[in-house]
Amino acid sequence: MAPLRTALFQGPAGVPRRSEDSLAALEHAARRAADAGARLLVTSELYLTGYAVGDALPDLAEPADGPGARRVARIAAEHGLAIAYGYPERAGGVRYNAAQLIGTDGTRLANYRKTHLFGAFETSHFTPGDEPVVQADLDGVRIGLLICYDVEFPESVRAHALAGTELLLAPTALMRPYEIVTQSVLPVRAWESQLYIAYANRCGPEGDFHFAGLSCLAAPDGTVRARAGTAEDLILADVDPDALKESRAENSYLDDRRPELYGSLV
Amino acid sequence: MAPLRTALFQGPAGVPRRSEDSLAALEHAARRAADAGARLLVTSELYLTGYAVGDALPDLAEPADGPGARRVARIAAEHGLAIAYGYPERAGGVRYNAAQLIGTDGTRLANYRKTHLFGAFETSHFTPGDEPVVQADLDGVRIGLLICYDVEFPESVRAHALAGTELLLAPTALMRPYEIVTQSVLPVRAWESQLYIAYANRCGPEGDFHFAGLSCLAAPDGTVRARAGTAEDLILADVDPDALKESRAENSYLDDRRPELYGSLV
Repeated sequence: MAPLRTALFQGPAGVPRRSEDSLAALEHAARRAADAGARLLVTSELYLTGYAVGDALPDLAEPADGPGARRVARIAAEHGLAIAYGYPERAGGVRYNAAQLIGTDGTRLANYRKTHLFGAFETSHFTPGDEPVVQADLDGVRIGLLICYDVEFPESVRAHALAGTELLLAPTALMRPYEIVTQSVLPVRAWESQLYIAYANRCGPEGDFHFAGLSCLAAPDGTVRARAGTAEDLILADVDPDALKESRAENSYLDDRRPELYGSLV
Repeated sequence: MAPLRTALFQGPAGVPRRSEDSLAALEHAARRAADAGARLLVTSELYLTGYAVGDALPDLAEPADGPGARRVARIAAEHGLAIAYGYPERAGGVRYNAAQLIGTDGTRLANYRKTHLFGAFETSHFTPGDEPVVQADLDGVRIGLLICYDVEFPESVRAHALAGTELLLAPTALMRPYEIVTQSVLPVRAWESQLYIAYANRCGPEGDFHFAGLSCLAAPDGTVRARAGTAEDLILADVDPDALKESRAENSYLDDRRPELYGSLV
C-alpha cells in the first residue's frame, strides 16, 4: 500500500483577529502541502479561532457543519487534500473542544470532542467529550483523532491502537515549559502502542500563554520522522502502513499485553 | 520526610560461574552503597544466576527462602541496607522470573513474579506471575516491584501509581539495540505516572545476548537523576517523597484520568 504523505501546519502564530485570517493561512498551507504531494494536512487545537480567546469563546463556537467547516471543506476539495483542524464546537447548548477531519472531496469524515480537558480556560468553557475513540479511513489508512492533553494519557493512545488506529492525529496547543511532551512523550507513545502520531502544535505567544511549537510526526519505531522548529512551520513525512505492519510484528507490545491484570485502571 | 538514598548496581558483567560469584559482587556493592549513605540497593533481573544460563535454569532455580535469599539477607543486615535482586524462583513445581526485596534487618519484605515474559528463553522456562502490584514499605516510602519488560507496558506502571507506589524498583536485562527503553521510555513512565523508577540493568555480553547497561533512576519530573554507563557501575540518587507530593500536585495526571473511558484496555 502506498505511503500516506502527511503535512503538519504549525501556525499562524498569535490569536487571529478573525477566523478569516486562519482560513487564509490554511488555504496557503494547503496549497504548499498539496504541491509537495501530501494527501493530509493536520493543524492545531482551536485552529480556527486561536486558543487564547478567553471569554469570547462562546461567541466564536460554531456547529460541526458551520461556516468555518464549509470553508475548510472547500479548501480540502480544491486541493484534493484531507484536512484535520481544531475548533470550538457548539452543540446541544454546550461547547466542545473539537477536531474535525474533512476528506479530500470536502466531505466530513469524523468529529472528535476532547475527553481530557486541560486547565482553567478549558474546564470553564468546554464540556468534556465522552467518546474515547473516533476513527475514519483515508486512502486505506485507519485514522484516529485525539487532542493535546489526551495523548499524554497512555490509556487514550492505547485504546486507539487496540481499535486499529494506524495514524493518530493530535491537534495540540502545548505550552512552554512542557516541551517534554513533544520531545519525549510523543515518540514513546508511538513506540509503546505501535502507531504513527501527527502532533500539530501552535507556536509563539498568545495572551498569557506561550506555545512551544516543535510539532512532530512520530513513528512506531520510536523515531521522529519530521520535527518543526518553534516558529511558524510546515513539515511533511510519509506514513507507511506496510512499515507499521512490520514494526508491529517485531515489537509485539499489543499482543503481549495482559488485560486481565489491568482491572485497576478502569 | 527524609529522602531515601537509593543505589543501583549494574554488574557484574557476564554469566557467573557460580552464584557465589554474584553474592561476592553483591557484598562488595552493598559495602560501597552503605558507605555512600544508601538505604536501598537494587540489582538486575536474574541477578543471582545470570541471564544467559539456558537449559541450566531449572537446576539453578531456588525457593524464595532458599540459600541465595539467606545469603542476601545476611548481606542486607550486615550493612543495614535493603536489597532488591532478581532470581529464578522455584515454587509449586514451576519456576517464576522473580525479584525479591529484603529489608535492612534481613527480613523478606516482598516477592514479585514477572507478569510479562519476554522472548523464547523466558517463555520456555518460566510461568508468568498473576499478581500485578506487589508492594512493601521502606523508611516510610511505598516501594513497588516490576521486572524488565513489565515496565514497557504503561498499564503496569499505572497500576502501581494508582495503588500508591512512590518508588518502583525494576531489575532488568535490557538488550541491545533496545536502548530506547532506558533512554526514553523509562523517564516518560516516571513522568506520566508520577513516581520514581529505579531501573537496574545487566551489562556486557552473555551468550547470544548483549546487555545495554545504562541503568537509571528516573524522577516524576521526567528527569534522570542518575545514569550508569555501559560497563559495570554503581550509581546513587535520592528519592524524595516530599518532592513527589509537590510534583503530583503540579502534574495532575493521576487525578485527570477518565477511567470510565478506558474499558477497552481490560
